Amino acid sequence: MLDKPAAALTLKHLMLSSDETYMRLALDEARAAAARDEVPIGAVLVDTPRDAILARAGNHAIGLHDPTAHAEILAIRAAAGALGNYRLNGCTLYVTLEPCAMCAGAISFARLARVVFAAEDPKGGGVLHGGRFFDQPTCHHRPEIASGVLGEEAAALLRDFFAARR
Amino acid sequence: MLDKPAAALTLKHLMLSSDETYMRLALDEARAAAARDEVPIGAVLVDTPRDAILARAGNHAIGLHDPTAHAEILAIRAAAGALGNYRLNGCTLYVTLEPCAMCAGAISFARLARVVFAAEDPKGGGVLHGGRFFDQPTCHHRPEIASGVLGEEAAALLRDFFAARR
Repeated sequence: MLDKPAAALTLKHLMLSSDETYMRLALDEARAAAARDEVPIGAVLVDTPRDAILARAGNHAIGLHDPTAHAEILAIRAAAGALGNYRLNGCTLYVTLEPCAMCAGAISFARLARVVFAAEDPKGGGVLHGGRFFDQPTCHHRPEIASGVLGEEAAALLRDFFAARR
Repeated sequence: MLDKPAAALTLKHLMLSSDETYMRLALDEARAAAARDEVPIGAVLVDTPRDAILARAGNHAIGLHDPTAHAEILAIRAAAGALGNYRLNGCTLYVTLEPCAMCAGAISFARLARVVFAAEDPKGGGVLHGGRFFDQPTCHHRPEIASGVLGEEAAALLRDFFAARR
């Protein structure tokens, strides 16, 4: 029995809360990646209409001997495999760093509805930087994009990881 | 005991001949993909210093329930897995169509020395079209690129495949 402004506020709060909740799980995956000496980036793939987690993963290129094993690619492959469908319509990907060109391509091919990322990546990003894949005429499915969710926490994780290795 | 111009000609001929030989194998993989109702694109990954094939693959996204299962990605993953190394320094990828943004990213991360492709892809390519990944400051390893090797044959295969499905 809320009046309209309060209801709107509550809905906005719930949406932000849900994005943050899933991004915290992605940050857990990033920390798990760091613990095995991989670049600390994590991802969680959510079937948004059902509010169900389909897959979660962290970067694993070195350990898996797979240069494509970015968190996003692993999460997308696992989710598509679990659903038995190479398209993930309606799903949202949460990832702690702006996806690169490779991952942006995979996101588009998988038909993800939405991508939420934490920190921007001026050096290697492919969404807001570089070839900006989703803005190209060669991109045939563009997801909704949101950025900056827990961005400072994700950036600090990467900074600390590389500082410790210098 | 060849004089210099003749030796240079012979060397050039041998290099072209080798590119065509590997591209013919990539075209075989493309035809095998078409036979299982996947987009007919094929790839062969060669350890060029040893002149040895490390992997060959055709598109398999639908059948494997994997939106990332382009021929290039499958060949790179298989070769890296076989070598136990996420970097494929010195290797050459032969592929029947200009790689997309996703595959260009994977090629760069795998540190491939050279990419040879057959047909150009104005609608979905990411090397000569779209975001031209290898020309971006966000690309940190650029392979040598050659295009047009058996290009008409590769383009005809794709044209026939889509014409039969219309």
